[in-house]
Amino acid sequence: MNISELQSFISEIPDYPKKGILFYDISTLINDSKAFMYSIEELASLLKKYNIDKLAAIDARGFVFGAALAQKLGLGLVMIRKKNKLPGKTFSQSYDLEYGQDTLEIKSNLSRAKFALIDDVLATGGTASAAIELIKKAGGTISCFCTLIELKFLSGRKKINVPYETLIKY
Amino acid sequence: MNISELQSFISEIPDYPKKGILFYDISTLINDSKAFMYSIEELASLLKKYNIDKLAAIDARGFVFGAALAQKLGLGLVMIRKKNKLPGKTFSQSYDLEYGQDTLEIKSNLSRAKFALIDDVLATGGTASAAIELIKKAGGTISCFCTLIELKFLSGRKKINVPYETLIKY
Repeated sequence: MNISELQSFISEIPDYPKKGILFYDISTLINDSKAFMYSIEELASLLKKYNIDKLAAIDARGFVFGAALAQKLGLGLVMIRKKNKLPGKTFSQSYDLEYGQDTLEIKSNLSRAKFALIDDVLATGGTASAAIELIKKAGGTISCFCTLIELKFLSGRKKINVPYETLIKY
Repeated sequence: MNISELQSFISEIPDYPKKGILFYDISTLINDSKAFMYSIEELASLLKKYNIDKLAAIDARGFVFGAALAQKLGLGLVMIRKKNKLPGKTFSQSYDLEYGQDTLEIKSNLSRAKFALIDDVLATGGTASAAIELIKKAGGTISCFCTLIELKFLSGRKKINVPYETLIKY
């Protein structure tokens, strides 16, 4: 397999979640064992040059890639979750959506660690930059942010103030 | 490591998500690389005796164990998601919560496959039995349901009409 074959496993869904938006659906990629394994191998090799001792992943599709990468690399995983999903003391960070706001949370008792932050897609960068802030609030440092897909036309990369890696660009 | 050492990585949080409920928090387990890797190895060996060609996992903590197991076993993964999170044609299944209802969805264009269904915890069995129905609706068959933790005192196992495996029992 190569990257352009991998890309053929991503479905393009017009007008989802709302009219005018073309949604890149990774569920067809992870359904296929060869495509899913290949994506994890390639993401793992993008992370090789960084000094990382833990992964963090963003609720919920980020968990799929974050957990598979944690297994591949033999690392622990920290979940960054939507509001009110984590018990105990948390830090939270709100961020703007096209309409309204959303909030992410992280547990506050993280050990100091050098993180790679994992998500499926970089779109406008709002979710990603909130997640980066949360890792810092919780005492971690970020070696890199890494996604399967970058939607370049949304310029999310401008909001990311840490090294960034991606496998597939639209 | 052994199962009782693994169990020591699960935090017990009293009165979460509401008063009187003791919550078993797996985030402290997956944060630790050794505990997370050990749990995946042991879950993989529980699945060995079943004829499985795909995994399914339940939104969102189920994705963590499902994706790591998919990586370990070299299998594709199907996401069973909360309502309105999957694009395209879906099947949906509602189930009762203590107060009110919730709904899970699966994409309708699944290939026929023999599934192991993965989640973090079996509690009352409402979520699990809805997920089992969804896999059947989508044309799959279920070889087994498998969780990290079973809360035996909630008797969820009675609602599960497929072979069931678990690593840790409370």
